[in-house]
Amino acid sequence: MSQTFSLAIDAMGGDNAPDIVLDGLELAAERHPKARFLLIGDEARIGAMLARRPRAAKLCMLRHAPGVISAEMKPTAALRQGRNSSMRLAIDAVASGEASGVVSAGNTGALMALAKIVVKTLPEIDRPALAAITPSARGDVVMLDLGANVQCDARNLVEFAVMGDTFARAVLGLTAPSFGLLNVGSEELKGDERVRQAAEVLRESHIGPNFHGFIEGHDIAAGTVDVVVTDGFTGNVALKTGEGALKLMRDLLRQVFTSSVPARMGYLLARPALDRLREWMDPRRYNGAILLGLNGVVVKSHGGTDATGFAHAVDVAMDMVTHRFNDRIREGLSMLSTPARVPVPATAPR
Amino acid sequence: MSQTFSLAIDAMGGDNAPDIVLDGLELAAERHPKARFLLIGDEARIGAMLARRPRAAKLCMLRHAPGVISAEMKPTAALRQGRNSSMRLAIDAVASGEASGVVSAGNTGALMALAKIVVKTLPEIDRPALAAITPSARGDVVMLDLGANVQCDARNLVEFAVMGDTFARAVLGLTAPSFGLLNVGSEELKGDERVRQAAEVLRESHIGPNFHGFIEGHDIAAGTVDVVVTDGFTGNVALKTGEGALKLMRDLLRQVFTSSVPARMGYLLARPALDRLREWMDPRRYNGAILLGLNGVVVKSHGGTDATGFAHAVDVAMDMVTHRFNDRIREGLSMLSTPARVPVPATAPR
Repeated sequence: MSQTFSLAIDAMGGDNAPDIVLDGLELAAERHPKARFLLIGDEARIGAMLARRPRAAKLCMLRHAPGVISAEMKPTAALRQGRNSSMRLAIDAVASGEASGVVSAGNTGALMALAKIVVKTLPEIDRPALAAITPSARGDVVMLDLGANVQCDARNLVEFAVMGDTFARAVLGLTAPSFGLLNVGSEELKGDERVRQAAEVLRESHIGPNFHGFIEGHDIAAGTVDVVVTDGFTGNVALKTGEGALKLMRDLLRQVFTSSVPARMGYLLARPALDRLREWMDPRRYNGAILLGLNGVVVKSHGGTDATGFAHAVDVAMDMVTHRFNDRIREGLSMLSTPARVPVPATAPR
Repeated sequence: MSQTFSLAIDAMGGDNAPDIVLDGLELAAERHPKARFLLIGDEARIGAMLARRPRAAKLCMLRHAPGVISAEMKPTAALRQGRNSSMRLAIDAVASGEASGVVSAGNTGALMALAKIVVKTLPEIDRPALAAITPSARGDVVMLDLGANVQCDARNLVEFAVMGDTFARAVLGLTAPSFGLLNVGSEELKGDERVRQAAEVLRESHIGPNFHGFIEGHDIAAGTVDVVVTDGFTGNVALKTGEGALKLMRDLLRQVFTSSVPARMGYLLARPALDRLREWMDPRRYNGAILLGLNGVVVKSHGGTDATGFAHAVDVAMDMVTHRFNDRIREGLSMLSTPARVPVPATAPR
């Protein structure tokens, strides 16, 4: 089937669906006037809502889905019982080739499981990885894996690096993104066998010249590299730890600027610069985690985001569709030169 | 030998040794007038310096060490070649029972290796763990392991929890510290076998009532629990990621408040509250990582800290010595009730 739609959109996923999904599409429609969206959900409910959002209505075709995958549903249950859900039908549209990608703010575990099983992994890839963009002192940084694989071996890490490299080229527009392997120290002998083996293979690969070597936790916010490569356990913890620290600072600053009358006045005087900082740190600007390595573009929006955040997740998906992202990943993987093609020695996965 | 000294101090470790070590002791001496320090290093150099610091001089006995373990030296080399170094002689003083603990700002890998081999692990413990205190929205939080063990199994995590509990009681003064296992999600089925097994054992243990269950990265800064338990790889990355994010915010705020004349004025108005925030976040206040589970108190100061930071590391060590910390750890481990004493099922270490 020809790809009639740029993206299939799960209208019912997320804490504030379908409202924020439709509002988000209305925002995104301005930036992607040529896109075509397949909007999937409770037709009676979203039909009327869509009619009130004229820009989105122009780009959307509606498809009814009687079911919803709840936030609590386990991936196995979602697979068995979710056949008529908005999420599943959206993913089916990618698997059938009707849409190039999907965006959902629904249940993360279910989305990842359904995507892996229905859309399927690229033949060149052992395991897909979840990637996202995070702020740093030197601009946006790509980080992966963020939890698709809690246990990874050296080969997985090598594949994540290649996918992260392609992602940074497509979405950040970099021509030669630098990347590093997250470790407990930057010296060559640090860490476990797994990261040392992956480093060895990466040094010899076609992206070897951009390999910075091992990096440490503080290098993420410092922006030492454009792409941070790690296993899904460490990456998930690191991303959430960094987000938590930034949130703590935002909360404390709010307290500072409401602690006294002079502090309030100080806030008003510094406000333009503080507002720029807040905007720059706005988590909505970083919304949209991507499951890389599948036969289609799969983007997960935060469940609790608002219309602006959802629109940003649509932007990320559109970037990837427009840049024919998957073709580039396959090229990148095929370029893993001979030494890297040799099976990476088996290590105990973690 | 009776414990003549509270602490042995490595005078030569760290970027700015011996100056900041001596200045730090001069500060610490005020807070611990009854302490006795065995100060080890280049006698000719530190003798004259000590004479100019009257408070420290009163509490210190000097011991000459002709050698120094450099920042670059590998642990194996430190073991072989460092026999006459200040770090080694300080550790020897703990092993012989001459001092109850040691503080060093020198080479971390060397300190951990020497401490494990010379001071030796408590018989009840499989592996020691590195712990430190980090700030959160609800006060100070203990986190471990921070890198002593990049590969841990379920049993190690259980032991870390018991040691962290004891540490939080001794140093934070809590009577029933809550603790959580760092994971990629808070649901029971999340994560790898290892963390799930550890959770099962902990729920049944004597500290089970204080077990919060799984926590995620953002829970560290939120202060969801008093003690964050994780493996050394994840813990090291998480600690440094959080520190990096806070540093990024400090740097950005500095930019904000120097970006315009009104912003500078705003800073001056809000300054008292901003200064309190800065003081609260001051990394020196969190200086002093502790290697738990040895036959003595071993505290590592940041290599790049100043006198205030070094004095804080001395405070931490003194807290542990005063509270007979190791006796308490042994009590805690002996209280691991029968189900926990049953060998934890073997899992692939990560």
